[in-house]
Amino acid sequence: MIERCLGAYRCRRIQRALRHLKVTVLCLVLTVVVLRGTIGAGKFGTPEQDLDEIRQHFQTSRKRAEPHRVLEEIQTGGGGGGGGDSVDGGGGGSNNYETFDINKIFVDEGEEEKPDPNKPYTLGPKISDWDEQRSDWLSKNPSFPNFIGPNKPRVLLVTGSAPKPCENPVGDHYLLKSIKNKIDYCRLHGIEIFYNMALLDAEMAGFWAKLPLIRKLLLSHPEIEFLWWMDSDAMFTDMAFELPWERYKDYNLVMHGWNEMVYDDKNWIGLNTGSFLLRNNQWALDLLDTWAPMGPKGKIREEAGKVLTRELKGRPVFEADDQSAMVYLLATQRDTWGNKVYLENGYYLHGYWGILVDRYEEMIENYHPGLGDHRWPLVTHFVGCKPCGKFGDYPVERCLKQMDRAFNFGDNQILQIYGFTHKSLASRKVKRVRNETSNPLEMKDELGLLHPAFKAVKVQQTNQV
Amino acid sequence: MIERCLGAYRCRRIQRALRHLKVTVLCLVLTVVVLRGTIGAGKFGTPEQDLDEIRQHFQTSRKRAEPHRVLEEIQTGGGGGGGGDSVDGGGGGSNNYETFDINKIFVDEGEEEKPDPNKPYTLGPKISDWDEQRSDWLSKNPSFPNFIGPNKPRVLLVTGSAPKPCENPVGDHYLLKSIKNKIDYCRLHGIEIFYNMALLDAEMAGFWAKLPLIRKLLLSHPEIEFLWWMDSDAMFTDMAFELPWERYKDYNLVMHGWNEMVYDDKNWIGLNTGSFLLRNNQWALDLLDTWAPMGPKGKIREEAGKVLTRELKGRPVFEADDQSAMVYLLATQRDTWGNKVYLENGYYLHGYWGILVDRYEEMIENYHPGLGDHRWPLVTHFVGCKPCGKFGDYPVERCLKQMDRAFNFGDNQILQIYGFTHKSLASRKVKRVRNETSNPLEMKDELGLLHPAFKAVKVQQTNQV
Repeated sequence: MIERCLGAYRCRRIQRALRHLKVTVLCLVLTVVVLRGTIGAGKFGTPEQDLDEIRQHFQTSRKRAEPHRVLEEIQTGGGGGGGGDSVDGGGGGSNNYETFDINKIFVDEGEEEKPDPNKPYTLGPKISDWDEQRSDWLSKNPSFPNFIGPNKPRVLLVTGSAPKPCENPVGDHYLLKSIKNKIDYCRLHGIEIFYNMALLDAEMAGFWAKLPLIRKLLLSHPEIEFLWWMDSDAMFTDMAFELPWERYKDYNLVMHGWNEMVYDDKNWIGLNTGSFLLRNNQWALDLLDTWAPMGPKGKIREEAGKVLTRELKGRPVFEADDQSAMVYLLATQRDTWGNKVYLENGYYLHGYWGILVDRYEEMIENYHPGLGDHRWPLVTHFVGCKPCGKFGDYPVERCLKQMDRAFNFGDNQILQIYGFTHKSLASRKVKRVRNETSNPLEMKDELGLLHPAFKAVKVQQTNQV
Repeated sequence: MIERCLGAYRCRRIQRALRHLKVTVLCLVLTVVVLRGTIGAGKFGTPEQDLDEIRQHFQTSRKRAEPHRVLEEIQTGGGGGGGGDSVDGGGGGSNNYETFDINKIFVDEGEEEKPDPNKPYTLGPKISDWDEQRSDWLSKNPSFPNFIGPNKPRVLLVTGSAPKPCENPVGDHYLLKSIKNKIDYCRLHGIEIFYNMALLDAEMAGFWAKLPLIRKLLLSHPEIEFLWWMDSDAMFTDMAFELPWERYKDYNLVMHGWNEMVYDDKNWIGLNTGSFLLRNNQWALDLLDTWAPMGPKGKIREEAGKVLTRELKGRPVFEADDQSAMVYLLATQRDTWGNKVYLENGYYLHGYWGILVDRYEEMIENYHPGLGDHRWPLVTHFVGCKPCGKFGDYPVERCLKQMDRAFNFGDNQILQIYGFTHKSLASRKVKRVRNETSNPLEMKDELGLLHPAFKAVKVQQTNQV
């Protein structure tokens, strides 16, 4: 039994390694062909540089340790779904685990119709009067107000994952835990959820897929005041923290980040696009139009990646990603956008898991939910972990173990409402922390999450245009 | 490459077969020991009969074709999570796919403290004044009304799955699709979601896990008027159908079923407990107390199963399940409960997949969403498919293929809102059905799901006690 099992496992390991190698080589060759095939050097760099950079790219691609967007994209052919890091891997490549049969039985008509290379990419028809269109709609539809309480905007949390099962089958279990976690936070805070599993625009596969999706949702839902994008590999770890909406009343885009790192250092991790708020207005549409052009996959994304790596501090060599593009956009066009962008670091709108997960016990010891910051982070984001992909930047065991801890850390705040808790942050099992009572309504949950005030305000609704 | 892969796959197959055999035999032995160990014959049957039934049970267990609750429970040791059919398998047994390592790294403290066998099982302390407690709370908390519009009760949809990854790794992908599908329906219909992943009561593992969970939620959320239980293997296939709440104003429990089949024939599939509505009142607590006693796992559930098989029409031999227990309860105590139970068959509150999935194209051809019945079923329930378990009653390929079709059938109604549709019911890929416009708000989605009236009423809220 045991040898068989280990044999099987080793066998799959080798097999997967071989598959990776094959795909990588194939991509290398293809990319070279494309570049060679091009007359001239395109608007960035020369073919000679290209080739060197590509070599360097594959040499450095497995060496890095710092948090960053990784390189599966180029190797798997792009995920879609728009779920950010943890999705990309799930989108492409073949799937030779237990799931092989559904991919066999699955009819998927051939390739998308190729876009015209002569037409520059756009997210859609230009819209320049969105603020008028929207305020007009809002005044005609008082039963769909964009504010559901004083300083409580109507928010749509948008996340998603690839349409296919994960390359690594256990990944889907973590996507499931991740959405359960978001369902809990959003139920408590009166936020609606849109979970995307469709690739709306093949050009924008992978971490760029969120752009066409976000534009579509803003234009379809004028009643939404703020759209909250959240990667599928980010989890809520403070269920009690309500965003400081008042603070953002004069801003259109809120991301976790630091002004100096973005505007002065042009550091590619000066902000994070794994969890951000975008207001539904004309400014947002204009920003998306400015943000998108580096996204189209293939040569454009490849070449743009070189510019970003050259211009941004600390960026490894790989194709253009949405986060680097945003840093570049803000650093080079601060006058145009800066005054409406709030880089938040007063709490963890995004929190890098590496510096948080080992401190959960300490937090439980010393603090309580509702703080949102280093004492009790609102979000723990598993940047660089690819539970759904074939490989990330960190050992999969560490990632999975820590994702379970983060989930349980957040889940304990939900369970305590009902008188339960996980036996430990490492345990899926739960135990009672209170005895049942015959007067359940006299029982108050410590965090007041059962009937929170910020949820009650849902009944007073107003239009603020 | 290919042999390696097939080799690995065959190897896993054999290994799994062996594991099943081992567990089955182990359980057989254990059960026999327990029965032998008992002084006397217990209140049902004699040890001799027991042993015969158990033999028969394992002989017949793989032969049946009709839809029914299957027997993994007894073999896997119970699921938890309360997700119904498709969850049970996920709960127990070891997991030797790619996921093996998380089970290795996972700390799970030993067994639960065994309950006192002399104390009869209860769901919790007796509560007899719930209606008073609740109406008192509602009058004190006008900002949490139990009705969010005229004849629009506040509803909590409750579903879930086991805390562990699925035995069959692709199962988690279908759990993910299933919750995405529920998120969509509930967003459109102003229904909140509670996704459970915890086993609150080890005694009630498997398809009985929903009982303690439901009781806990009713008592914790007096603002909820109706709790809607839905199995994880049921999907919404009519996104436009709003439940006829008015019809249920004098009823406390709504299940899909037929009076004759339940009350006259005592047919074990005369109703289905995979999707039902339960009103939050004293009557519901009393019903749960009456429903629960057959649930505790082990000898009680085993012996109760024999009673149910003996008393109910068409029931195969296996341990007591919640659905059979409900049929038995209603058939034997109609006077006590019947007048408040509505057996719905005017639309598919639960729809058996076997008679629906091959007709989707015909429905698209002739009808439209919003009908909810045989012309366009509200719910398609994959009874007897165990995508998360090790094996169900149907070939896994057929189940997965049809679950994908059901998901896409429902998802097309969401996608059309945004101008997209799946390339076919068998395709994960989507295509445009409308061109983008620069006046998005003048665009009406065919089904009127973008800003449905039944959602707009959320702003007028009233307390009806």
